[in-house]
Amino acid sequence: MAYQDKSLITNFFHLSLITNNLSLINVETALYLLPVTLGDTPIEMVLPSYNKEIIFGISHFIVEDVRSARRFLKKVDREIDIDTLTFYPLNKHTSPEDISGYLKPLMAGLSMGVISEAGCPAVADPGADVVAIAQRKNLKVVPLVGPSSIILSVMGSGFNGQSFAFHGYLPIEPGERAKK
Amino acid sequence: MAYQDKSLITNFFHLSLITNNLSLINVETALYLLPVTLGDTPIEMVLPSYNKEIIFGISHFIVEDVRSARRFLKKVDREIDIDTLTFYPLNKHTSPEDISGYLKPLMAGLSMGVISEAGCPAVADPGADVVAIAQRKNLKVVPLVGPSSIILSVMGSGFNGQSFAFHGYLPIEPGERAKK
Repeated sequence: MAYQDKSLITNFFHLSLITNNLSLINVETALYLLPVTLGDTPIEMVLPSYNKEIIFGISHFIVEDVRSARRFLKKVDREIDIDTLTFYPLNKHTSPEDISGYLKPLMAGLSMGVISEAGCPAVADPGADVVAIAQRKNLKVVPLVGPSSIILSVMGSGFNGQSFAFHGYLPIEPGERAKK
Repeated sequence: MAYQDKSLITNFFHLSLITNNLSLINVETALYLLPVTLGDTPIEMVLPSYNKEIIFGISHFIVEDVRSARRFLKKVDREIDIDTLTFYPLNKHTSPEDISGYLKPLMAGLSMGVISEAGCPAVADPGADVVAIAQRKNLKVVPLVGPSSIILSVMGSGFNGQSFAFHGYLPIEPGERAKK
C-alpha cells in the first residue's frame, strides 16, 4: 500500500509537470489540422497529448466524414459531448463558397479543426482547399503532428528519402486503380 | 485539499487507463525509428506518449549525433540514466560493415533505436542505410510517429498534396546551397 501511494504521488507530479508545460504554450485561435489514427491504433500510440488539449478547445469541425469524425472524437475522450459540437461536411462536392461560409466561426475568433478520413488532413484530401481559402483570408493555420502513411513508409522503406515523389493514393475504384 | 485529493485520484486512474491500454500492445524486439522534436518544441506537443514507453525499453541507440541524442533522451525523461546506454555514431563516414556490427544487439534479441538530428529518422539522413541493412537481415523495423517538416509543410501549404516531389533538404554550406 505504501508503495502504491508513492507511485500515485509520483504519477501525479509527473502529470502536473506535463500540464504545466502545456499551459505555458499560448493556445491561439487558428484552423488546426488534426490528424487521426490509421485503423484501430490506440490514440496514445500515434498522437501527441497536446492534440487532445487542442481538441478540447474546439467546437467547430470541418470534416471529410461526419460519422468517422464523431467516432474519432469519442475515441479521444469518451466523455466528450458530441451534441454540443458543430460539423461541416467536406467532400469533392463542397464548393469554395461553402468552405468560405464554414470558416465564419474562425473569422469570429473561434478555433476550428479539420479532420480527414485517416491520417494527416490536407495531404491528398479536400482539407487542402480549406487551408488554401483560410490562407487567402489571412487566417492562421496550424498543422498538428500525427501518423502519415507517406512518411512512415519512407522511413520504413530503407530508401534514402533524400528525394522522392508522391503521385497520390491509388484510387479505391478498381477501374480507376488499374489505370494508375 | 479534498478537491486536490480527488483530482489526484482521477489523474491516477486516467494514467493507469493509458498504461493498461499500452501494455496490451506487445512490445516486440525491433529496430525502432524514433523521431525527435524540431527545435525547442516540448516533447508532449509533437511525440505520442507511446514513443516514451518504447524508449524506456531500449539501451542501444544508433544516432546521427551522440550529443544531441543524449540531450533528447534527457528531455524525454530527466531521470534517465544516460551512462547505462550505448550509442553508435552514424554519419556519412560510417561504412556498411560498421552498421552491420552496430546491429549485433538487435540480432541477439535486444530492441534498438535510431535517432537522427531532427524530426523523423531515415528520411533524407543516414538512418536509411541502417534500415536497408536491417531489412536485408530480415530484422523487424518499426517507424514511430513524430514531426516531419515535409508533411507539416505540405499540410500547411494549401497545395492539394495529391502529388508532390521532395528534392532533398537544402545544403547547409552556402556554396552548395546556391547550386540547388
